Amino acid sequence: MAFQWENYTAGVCYYPEHWPEELWAGDLDRMLQNGITVVRVAEFAWNKCEPEEGVFTYDFWQRFLDLCSEKGMQVIFGTPTATPPAWITEKYPEVLNCSREGIPYRHGCRRHYNYNSPVYRKLCSRIVEKIAQAYAKHPAVIGWQIDNELNCETDEFYSDADSQAFRAYLQQKFGTLEKLNEALGTVFWNQTYTDWSQIYVPRPLLHGGYNPHLMLEWRRFISESCLSFCEMQAAILRRHKKPGDFITTNGLFAGMDNHRMTRESLDTYAFDFYPNFAYALNNASPDTSLRDRWASLNLINARSVCPHFSIMEQQSGANGWANRLEACAPRPGQLTLWAMQGIAHGADFISFFRWRTCRIGTEIYWHGILDYDNRENRKLREVRGFTEKMKKIAPVCGAAFKASFALLRDYDNEYDARFDTWHRRVLQPSHDGIFEAAARAHLPYDIIFIDQPDAAEKIAQFPVLIYPHPVITDEKRVDLLKTYVENGGTLILGCRTGYKDMQGQCPMLPQPGLFAPLTGTDVQDFTFTTFAEPDSWADMDGTALDTPIFNDIITPLPGTRVLARYQESYYKGEAALTENTVGKGKVMHFGSVFTKDNTLPILRHTGVKNLFSDICTAPETVEMVLREKEGKQYLFLLNFPNREAEITLHIPCKCLYTGDTLQGPVTLSPFGTLVLEL
Amino acid sequence: MAFQWENYTAGVCYYPEHWPEELWAGDLDRMLQNGITVVRVAEFAWNKCEPEEGVFTYDFWQRFLDLCSEKGMQVIFGTPTATPPAWITEKYPEVLNCSREGIPYRHGCRRHYNYNSPVYRKLCSRIVEKIAQAYAKHPAVIGWQIDNELNCETDEFYSDADSQAFRAYLQQKFGTLEKLNEALGTVFWNQTYTDWSQIYVPRPLLHGGYNPHLMLEWRRFISESCLSFCEMQAAILRRHKKPGDFITTNGLFAGMDNHRMTRESLDTYAFDFYPNFAYALNNASPDTSLRDRWASLNLINARSVCPHFSIMEQQSGANGWANRLEACAPRPGQLTLWAMQGIAHGADFISFFRWRTCRIGTEIYWHGILDYDNRENRKLREVRGFTEKMKKIAPVCGAAFKASFALLRDYDNEYDARFDTWHRRVLQPSHDGIFEAAARAHLPYDIIFIDQPDAAEKIAQFPVLIYPHPVITDEKRVDLLKTYVENGGTLILGCRTGYKDMQGQCPMLPQPGLFAPLTGTDVQDFTFTTFAEPDSWADMDGTALDTPIFNDIITPLPGTRVLARYQESYYKGEAALTENTVGKGKVMHFGSVFTKDNTLPILRHTGVKNLFSDICTAPETVEMVLREKEGKQYLFLLNFPNREAEITLHIPCKCLYTGDTLQGPVTLSPFGTLVLEL
Amino acid sequence: MAFQWENYTAGVCYYPEHWPEELWAGDLDRMLQNGITVVRVAEFAWNKCEPEEGVFTYDFWQRFLDLCSEKGMQVIFGTPTATPPAWITEKYPEVLNCSREGIPYRHGCRRHYNYNSPVYRKLCSRIVEKIAQAYAKHPAVIGWQIDNELNCETDEFYSDADSQAFRAYLQQKFGTLEKLNEALGTVFWNQTYTDWSQIYVPRPLLHGGYNPHLMLEWRRFISESCLSFCEMQAAILRRHKKPGDFITTNGLFAGMDNHRMTRESLDTYAFDFYPNFAYALNNASPDTSLRDRWASLNLINARSVCPHFSIMEQQSGANGWANRLEACAPRPGQLTLWAMQGIAHGADFISFFRWRTCRIGTEIYWHGILDYDNRENRKLREVRGFTEKMKKIAPVCGAAFKASFALLRDYDNEYDARFDTWHRRVLQPSHDGIFEAAARAHLPYDIIFIDQPDAAEKIAQFPVLIYPHPVITDEKRVDLLKTYVENGGTLILGCRTGYKDMQGQCPMLPQPGLFAPLTGTDVQDFTFTTFAEPDSWADMDGTALDTPIFNDIITPLPGTRVLARYQESYYKGEAALTENTVGKGKVMHFGSVFTKDNTLPILRHTGVKNLFSDICTAPETVEMVLREKEGKQYLFLLNFPNREAEITLHIPCKCLYTGDTLQGPVTLSPFGTLVLEL
Repeated sequence: MAFQWENYTAGVCYYPEHWPEELWAGDLDRMLQNGITVVRVAEFAWNKCEPEEGVFTYDFWQRFLDLCSEKGMQVIFGTPTATPPAWITEKYPEVLNCSREGIPYRHGCRRHYNYNSPVYRKLCSRIVEKIAQAYAKHPAVIGWQIDNELNCETDEFYSDADSQAFRAYLQQKFGTLEKLNEALGTVFWNQTYTDWSQIYVPRPLLHGGYNPHLMLEWRRFISESCLSFCEMQAAILRRHKKPGDFITTNGLFAGMDNHRMTRESLDTYAFDFYPNFAYALNNASPDTSLRDRWASLNLINARSVCPHFSIMEQQSGANGWANRLEACAPRPGQLTLWAMQGIAHGADFISFFRWRTCRIGTEIYWHGILDYDNRENRKLREVRGFTEKMKKIAPVCGAAFKASFALLRDYDNEYDARFDTWHRRVLQPSHDGIFEAAARAHLPYDIIFIDQPDAAEKIAQFPVLIYPHPVITDEKRVDLLKTYVENGGTLILGCRTGYKDMQGQCPMLPQPGLFAPLTGTDVQDFTFTTFAEPDSWADMDGTALDTPIFNDIITPLPGTRVLARYQESYYKGEAALTENTVGKGKVMHFGSVFTKDNTLPILRHTGVKNLFSDICTAPETVEMVLREKEGKQYLFLLNFPNREAEITLHIPCKCLYTGDTLQGPVTLSPFGTLVLEL
Repeated sequence: MAFQWENYTAGVCYYPEHWPEELWAGDLDRMLQNGITVVRVAEFAWNKCEPEEGVFTYDFWQRFLDLCSEKGMQVIFGTPTATPPAWITEKYPEVLNCSREGIPYRHGCRRHYNYNSPVYRKLCSRIVEKIAQAYAKHPAVIGWQIDNELNCETDEFYSDADSQAFRAYLQQKFGTLEKLNEALGTVFWNQTYTDWSQIYVPRPLLHGGYNPHLMLEWRRFISESCLSFCEMQAAILRRHKKPGDFITTNGLFAGMDNHRMTRESLDTYAFDFYPNFAYALNNASPDTSLRDRWASLNLINARSVCPHFSIMEQQSGANGWANRLEACAPRPGQLTLWAMQGIAHGADFISFFRWRTCRIGTEIYWHGILDYDNRENRKLREVRGFTEKMKKIAPVCGAAFKASFALLRDYDNEYDARFDTWHRRVLQPSHDGIFEAAARAHLPYDIIFIDQPDAAEKIAQFPVLIYPHPVITDEKRVDLLKTYVENGGTLILGCRTGYKDMQGQCPMLPQPGLFAPLTGTDVQDFTFTTFAEPDSWADMDGTALDTPIFNDIITPLPGTRVLARYQESYYKGEAALTENTVGKGKVMHFGSVFTKDNTLPILRHTGVKNLFSDICTAPETVEMVLREKEGKQYLFLLNFPNREAEITLHIPCKCLYTGDTLQGPVTLSPFGTLVLEL
Repeated sequence: MAFQWENYTAGVCYYPEHWPEELWAGDLDRMLQNGITVVRVAEFAWNKCEPEEGVFTYDFWQRFLDLCSEKGMQVIFGTPTATPPAWITEKYPEVLNCSREGIPYRHGCRRHYNYNSPVYRKLCSRIVEKIAQAYAKHPAVIGWQIDNELNCETDEFYSDADSQAFRAYLQQKFGTLEKLNEALGTVFWNQTYTDWSQIYVPRPLLHGGYNPHLMLEWRRFISESCLSFCEMQAAILRRHKKPGDFITTNGLFAGMDNHRMTRESLDTYAFDFYPNFAYALNNASPDTSLRDRWASLNLINARSVCPHFSIMEQQSGANGWANRLEACAPRPGQLTLWAMQGIAHGADFISFFRWRTCRIGTEIYWHGILDYDNRENRKLREVRGFTEKMKKIAPVCGAAFKASFALLRDYDNEYDARFDTWHRRVLQPSHDGIFEAAARAHLPYDIIFIDQPDAAEKIAQFPVLIYPHPVITDEKRVDLLKTYVENGGTLILGCRTGYKDMQGQCPMLPQPGLFAPLTGTDVQDFTFTTFAEPDSWADMDGTALDTPIFNDIITPLPGTRVLARYQESYYKGEAALTENTVGKGKVMHFGSVFTKDNTLPILRHTGVKNLFSDICTAPETVEMVLREKEGKQYLFLLNFPNREAEITLHIPCKCLYTGDTLQGPVTLSPFGTLVLEL
């Protein structure tokens, strides 16, 4: 990354345009008094710069930036392209995104534009150019945010501009209609295209029975569209920004290649972190024990994109639009807990959303630090406490996150599983199951995207990899993993491995397809499990592994060991889990999905290490994070439940909050945190 | 009101156009023989008067009205504007209402028109004028019904005509775009309007994330549109009708100011009463004990609009369209029970829907008194029994309903809660909870709309008011309540009081905002309750008050007493219910919603009187209603369950059905009723 | 029927266009080696014959057909009209069907065309003509399939072409607008049409509150449209086909008169049989004991259309589109079980779907016999085993199915119940209840459509008929049943009998309307049952009959016996089941719906015969089918659960699989089958 924070820094999202100008100075003073030294502004304020087409005004932000300089406040400036002015969408309705039925999303919300409209691209380029020209050299500015939450609200695009761009994308990728028809398997159901003009983004059809290969390309196309829209802005900002200032955007949203975007267009990656969605009133999940900690799955993803990232929006109050997403106020201690969790996972900049709850609009319930009444409150006191702690843990900044193993993912399979329910039914549960198993067992893991250029280098650092369901694969990926295993790594693969190629077609190969030489297995039969039979399970030397949802019935090839065998249905006694030695390493092939229960026995078989066993013993509801820098190790302890937690430190540790040395039994308060130097 | 029935009167809805003309005379004779002296006709019969555009025919209704005169039947004549002819909607599709997506609702159902189409207004004015000219002087006619069930089927309007009228409405209200933008808080998400033409009624946008201030104005606009459509017709009818004849319409539907409509355009208000929706097959409510009695909430509302009202449609059979709303046949006794409940609450005219079940169309299952076979049946016998009882209770007619307390409502808050889920989540449960608590405790109440001109006068008659959640308020309303309290009244307010102004914006004020001087409280923290914690509750001197859904954490100002304190979550021990003395009165501030359980302890604290304690003791499932006229009191007893009820009369009472004097234990039959003179 | 298979024949669905031409010969060889002698091809391959408008190519299929001749493979050739090429739907979007909102269903799925577009009819006629000209004389061809699964995907049509054709249909049927208005009851809600152009197929309206008489005609119109589209193709094929070759299509789908289509346009009927939908992952039905056997309800229907039918698509693997309908793989034995069930019910040709699982497109999970890997597998082995068994049971081919009683149905009532929920709520449960009761009691039944010309002849063969809810009826049907009863038959009728005429209007008659002379009853009161009361039931001489959903309260006329009386609600003691003697026969009138519990006591009262009592005793989960031919009887035993079944043969039987003689206790394996000669 081109940019990394040198010190832990606290920021806040601020909307000068929402408040009387008389409040600005007082607001900035109070922020600084509470340890907040950066504001993120302007990301929805197009009208403040171009109130009518082609008429540009600069006074408003000039006054604000000058005041920031005067007060010593630093500014991250947002480009305003997430909310086109009414004068654009009224005059140029072709800039709007549509529903699949072709009904445009209208003015009044946000992100209702499409990435591909030529006129919107032109208007966006111009406003970004104008803003960059005006403010990039301002001393208060330290960085830039492109748009706001790309692909949030929706990552499906159906406008005419998208159909046109989709045709161009396909034409560039496949060259001829013959190759296109081959790649999309259009001979099925007589779908053959005989003219490029016959191709559209998905339009309504009966039962949503789309061509899955077309859907996969459409997903790739959306990612391309999003990334090129982002790069269009980044290129302008790069020309204008001061040396050392950074370009970022705030994620993390699906349907786009966040890794490539960050690598190609950004200097650092930022992430918006709202753990309280876990307690949204419409959250139907019955299990509460890991509920808000589940947000750390997003932190692992953010860390995968950028190991030292920013949190551009850290929840600081109850959230909700006027019509949805209602969640209760964070309990005392939770703001600190969540912010410290962000830091533990690699965030060096924590920017709270927002300074003061908005008095108007759809987000009057997306509460900020301050409430409508603008008075000191428990949330501001907690933020102040946090920024003080943040200073005390300064030595940790820049330390590396230590993980026990790595989980492999890639965008092709994610995109394919968006449409293909047979794929999705195995992918999502495995990601959830592995997360919960690892969380409860204190086995932190990294996520590595195997489709990124640095994958080989990254995976080499881990003794164990789980690639739950590489349904789609190619020789390059298999080769990369072969090298990893031959060099001594252990690779774990789940059911449905390798039955599709990069177009989502099923090659005429025994499963697991290209992986067969690695797994040493042959899948001659496979099935969803059925409610007509007892729950599927396998026996692994006396340990019961649940094997729900889908079962590959595995035939081990010569030399491959059987570790577990199915115990139900017509394939009782057949292999459910095998192990094959390849070079210095091993490949385990599991015939089902990974769950919170079966993942740990499988992982344990690999000998994966618990990083904390010599350091600390803690309940499974306490998250432990180990960081390392210049030979020193740091331990984060995060107590998620609203009750005390008893932990035991096996070695003397220095509490960075207080400077005290701790050892033996220690009590964490409800929602409490500790950061220890080992 | 300009019109009040002098005697209890029974009517029926009749559709001469559905039946061979040979049946008319026999039908009218049988009605009269069974005590029915009024028919309501013609409200869907546009084609009978204008079979093609500009061609008017008068014979059909002339013959029918003449026959009515001959038989001695009185007629309420409906204007036919609820069902435009096919020739209108085919030629002028702009008269149609649309879905939010802009898809018109087509010919074939009813109420598919919009209120604002100029051409529809012109065509409606003309047909009403023609009908009034033709029949207003007819001696059989005694009154007029405007349209049918205004705002039924839908109270959301999305046509182009609505967008144009909405712009005009906003322009008139706000004058300039600057003021409009200020009022609608359009600076949020860059929504600023720079031309009136950019404004529309709600159109599709992502996640329905609308501007709540715009939605509030749209709701007000719909009410305005409906009322002006009604007044357009009323003005014509007023010019033509005979002295003493009345103008009414039949409600009661949401999304419109029924009070103002009645005050400005009608001579009396009519209400359509279908208690059996409580037993519709798709009714998912699990609790059956107060099920059809819940309909009396509608009666309280109707009484609020007009203390002596009419029931234009009284359920007289199973109901259902061919595709929905299926409910079982009323059980023997229920027709009488429901009709008597209507009378108890203030209805002086009971018109059954309908004479005979329709043989054709969508409502073949909206059963009338007679079935398809046109034979005498148990329902007709029950109607006859009812009309006989009705004559015997004649002295009650015009007596005043006695209530123990009043519930305050207003349209601004109702409209706001239609879109704002944070608002709706507290408003609806409190209305339901208060109703059930009052019903079970025999504490009848009135509903008073504080936004109506007679509010001050009305509230002065009650010792206790509950205004559950005046989220939206202004100084005028607060002043009105201040005067009430200073003069000795007790005002009870719930959570979320006073955090919005009349535009639905949140002023920069400590909560409860303008109410703070009355409540003597400060709300510094507040939260939805969460499933992550035990159920919220408060202790009130040993009585447990459930405090679900939302909790304002109340800080009492000096002088304010704490009546109950929360017992869970981080605000355990903080005030949940307080009492402040203001002048001769008191203001109680409750930090949560009102439920069937917590309402009664709170009400009891006020010393509210049970009107029946010296008169009668009855189970909670028996509704008791007290009426008073010229020094005499009348008691209605209504037994809702299908089982006998034991009651005890503490004083001698005269049974108006039989003339007998009753005292001591009395048994009410299943679904049985009694009307007693005390 | 013009065509009947002389011997049991096995086929397979094959898609030469999906595979490299090099695979064809090997595929055909393997099919023949496994007992498959017929392939069905070409039904989605328009582009292989007309790759652009008006350009016809014949090489592809010529090569394939020649190869078939060479190998000795027979071919059923499909017309390709279910999937129009992209060049058609792009150039002529008017050929597309639409959603009710008017949004076209686009290219990419199948069956997205409408039956009434003149241009589509012209293009279809031409391609069928060209194909027939080219291949009809080819020696490999033995039959033709028209289109694919007519009315599958949807049987609702909303295009402009449909509206225009609907007007023509109504004009032809009713002649004048006056008669149309009368028939559709348009006086209700002022729906009167004053010009034919005002009439449309259903368009969006509020709450879906359609005119039920219009909806009934629209259903009839859809059937007409479908049948005339089919006949258009059949007429062409008839001109070209070789003598002895047959024309068919594959069903069985709702919303069309399958009987008339078969009679008028086809030589034999074919049916697509997918029992595993019973185990689809989204199947919410809790009861598993008869789950896949429920598919035999479809077999009874298919037998009703054509006693000796074909199964054009027999499930041979897990099924599923990429986005829906996921079901597990058939368990070993189920392929044989299901295929034998098809044969038991009258299928003489079993064509498996499909030879090899498709590698591409929406149906990559609609698994064929072979999997993607093209290797021998357990499914192919099972098919081979089946075809061997099929040869051994050859003597059964052509034998007649023996049923204990008949169930009456008709299209008018089916169509009416599609829209009318009061009708549907009784019809569907009765069909399900009767099926389950009969299945468990080993009482096989036939379905007879009373609206077909052969109804009188067919019903005369049965001692007992159940006509559960002839809501719609006319004198002709009643007369037909009167004759049946007078000649000694027993007719059982359920609730809601006879309250509508052929237009779905309710005549002014005592219920059961025209049936009253047969039932000897009068229904003066009726009601849905309600959750406010205990479950409704009736006592039949000590046997409790459940009487859920709806209750006709029956008054027996003089001479009519009461067999059961209601025991709950206000009609306790009233008749629930009566019996009237008419001529030599009897009519039973039941006031409720037929359920799995009440059907058997009612049937037993008629003395209906168990065909198996002297032959075999088997558990209720084993289906028994008796076939008869030339004085010989054959018994099929089908064991549906995944466990052994103990049966007892009371007479010596010859096992056609082995030639052994069996008698006394016999064990059926899980999913096992036996075919015995008695």
